[in-house]
Amino acid sequence: MTSNSEPLLLHRCDARGVHVLTLNQPKSFNVLSEAMLDELQRQLGAIAADEQARALVIAAEGKAFCAGHDLKQMKAHPQLAYYQGLFAKCSKMMLSIAKLPIPVIARVQGLATAAGCQLVAQCDLAVAAESASFGVNGIDVGLFCATPSVPLVRNVPAKKAMEMLLTGGFIAAQEALEQGLVNKVVPAAELDTAIDEFLTAICSKPRDAISVGKQLFYQQRELGLEAAYQLAGQTMACNMMLDVAQEGVQAFIEKREPAWRR
Amino acid sequence: MTSNSEPLLLHRCDARGVHVLTLNQPKSFNVLSEAMLDELQRQLGAIAADEQARALVIAAEGKAFCAGHDLKQMKAHPQLAYYQGLFAKCSKMMLSIAKLPIPVIARVQGLATAAGCQLVAQCDLAVAAESASFGVNGIDVGLFCATPSVPLVRNVPAKKAMEMLLTGGFIAAQEALEQGLVNKVVPAAELDTAIDEFLTAICSKPRDAISVGKQLFYQQRELGLEAAYQLAGQTMACNMMLDVAQEGVQAFIEKREPAWRR
Amino acid sequence: MTSNSEPLLLHRCDARGVHVLTLNQPKSFNVLSEAMLDELQRQLGAIAADEQARALVIAAEGKAFCAGHDLKQMKAHPQLAYYQGLFAKCSKMMLSIAKLPIPVIARVQGLATAAGCQLVAQCDLAVAAESASFGVNGIDVGLFCATPSVPLVRNVPAKKAMEMLLTGGFIAAQEALEQGLVNKVVPAAELDTAIDEFLTAICSKPRDAISVGKQLFYQQRELGLEAAYQLAGQTMACNMMLDVAQEGVQAFIEKREPAWRR
Repeated sequence: MTSNSEPLLLHRCDARGVHVLTLNQPKSFNVLSEAMLDELQRQLGAIAADEQARALVIAAEGKAFCAGHDLKQMKAHPQLAYYQGLFAKCSKMMLSIAKLPIPVIARVQGLATAAGCQLVAQCDLAVAAESASFGVNGIDVGLFCATPSVPLVRNVPAKKAMEMLLTGGFIAAQEALEQGLVNKVVPAAELDTAIDEFLTAICSKPRDAISVGKQLFYQQRELGLEAAYQLAGQTMACNMMLDVAQEGVQAFIEKREPAWRR
Repeated sequence: MTSNSEPLLLHRCDARGVHVLTLNQPKSFNVLSEAMLDELQRQLGAIAADEQARALVIAAEGKAFCAGHDLKQMKAHPQLAYYQGLFAKCSKMMLSIAKLPIPVIARVQGLATAAGCQLVAQCDLAVAAESASFGVNGIDVGLFCATPSVPLVRNVPAKKAMEMLLTGGFIAAQEALEQGLVNKVVPAAELDTAIDEFLTAICSKPRDAISVGKQLFYQQRELGLEAAYQLAGQTMACNMMLDVAQEGVQAFIEKREPAWRR
Repeated sequence: MTSNSEPLLLHRCDARGVHVLTLNQPKSFNVLSEAMLDELQRQLGAIAADEQARALVIAAEGKAFCAGHDLKQMKAHPQLAYYQGLFAKCSKMMLSIAKLPIPVIARVQGLATAAGCQLVAQCDLAVAAESASFGVNGIDVGLFCATPSVPLVRNVPAKKAMEMLLTGGFIAAQEALEQGLVNKVVPAAELDTAIDEFLTAICSKPRDAISVGKQLFYQQRELGLEAAYQLAGQTMACNMMLDVAQEGVQAFIEKREPAWRR
């Protein structure tokens, strides 16, 4: 548990509107205790309400990125209703990442296990240090990583996902890249530079178009092809009516930078 | 726009029944203007009705394969109803490729951007020149590539698709191959040879079996596992009743070529 | 057909509860005749009822792993009702693999074609010899591999699946690995060692957690993101109430092996 005086989660925001949430329980490998989940949910809510926000980076202090759920806390509450509440709380937080109107990037500097690996999979983008590794190893303690399997199999081919879930085996950062779990792998010292490349690109686009597009992406993926095209066509028509798109297209025609590009 | 005397789209068909549609607006990077979309739709309709047709290759003249929508034309009609109509028109054309009873192969000799990249993703197969590159970069002008995201995420892993959509970044042909967006990458001079290998294979199979199979492939992919097996089982039973399958199986047993193989 | 005295299918089970079913018609390339499908279904039923079972390996004798359906038998019954029954029978067997409460591993020592390739795709995990190869080449006899396309496109990227289905072309083991169709490729002499690594891992976990997890994995994959999280959260809460999970978590806290680990 977390009775020390250090905040569970560090939060900063720069002039661009880039928020960074840093899991700050390195001694307990940044486990997703109830308090940590509550704090993440609270911060995600605040960031969702910040109309100046442009992107969110989820980072972590210490050797591990995130070791999943707080097993001590779970063991202390052996009640079905408690576990149902806990996994509902965690799933709600994960869905809030998908619903956040700005891109969310995982900055994976170390080990990401179970719900920690889920967190990486649930983010829109992920950059990992060469030394990071990834596992959904709840099965090692007799607890199949059911909720982590949800974003995992939506990122990684089925047989690889099943292998990780059944054996509890870890994959190195390079394999995570090849399997689609992360976007980039770099030396640890270059993590921030690599993430900043994504942030620079994202911040140079209009927020509204990014927001509409991210939402559409996850919605249309769940639909059949025709329904997906219908929804996407409506979304794109509305996007085109935004001032930012009218200006962006006009700027393209005039071979100049759009006025909204900082 | 397209008031010159050159046809928007070149069409030829060889003795095998292989149709080739060539986007022929190289100076405007083969943009999908309304006129181009109409012409593509018209030709797709005609080819769908040609019972001798065996395959369709979508190719392009000039340096670019296709640069997506015609932004000048779009800017000239800043009305929601216009954009809704335009994206509906484009989506209908894309769906016509999926529904065409013969395989459709993209011949990507150069840049494929936005709806041009969508066109590649929507084709059944794609062969790219080493120098080709691929991007869904509408976001650069403030217009998230919503409709291109539909076939993109059905071909490419989610995090890579999201990265391309959010950053507007391009991937080279080799990465497009690794990510599943194209089937083969070859030197530009070998594009036709590589495509002809596919065409030779396809033309050596019975058209009816290919047609039934292509339709089934996209239908079953949208279903749950049990429903998919039910539909596929029915489809395969009906396919087996076709004369071509009875002859093909008999020929296999007799270790000879089937009579329908040219 | 199969009137010799050799059993169609060899069955053994070791002290760990690892079942091995070996297709034993090497001269006919282990085709899935009606009798073979019946025998597989019967054995899968018996293994499903064996509460001591921990894993199933599907292996094969001879040069080929499995050459798909028995074309001679199919040709002898040119009736729609027969083919409908045959594909329903085969699909039921394939679904029984997905529903089996233990992991199923394909041991692919040679050629896997058509429904033989489907069998590999349908297994939870697959290990292939370097010399194995994979094709869904029914189209070569005029019969599109409709039912094989069901698990194929759930394992392999869409354009590669379509290429294999349309052209009848084969991919080597290494490409099958890169495309997600198998988990590992090893020299033929190391097949059993590689599979035993998976088996050792699986047998060291509690059967109930594996069983619940495997079922959840395939169910949630068919759902939208929110419904998938709801089902997974409920499943994980119930899993956590199992004695094995309570003991596993307690053992983790006490830094010891769980009592259930053999």
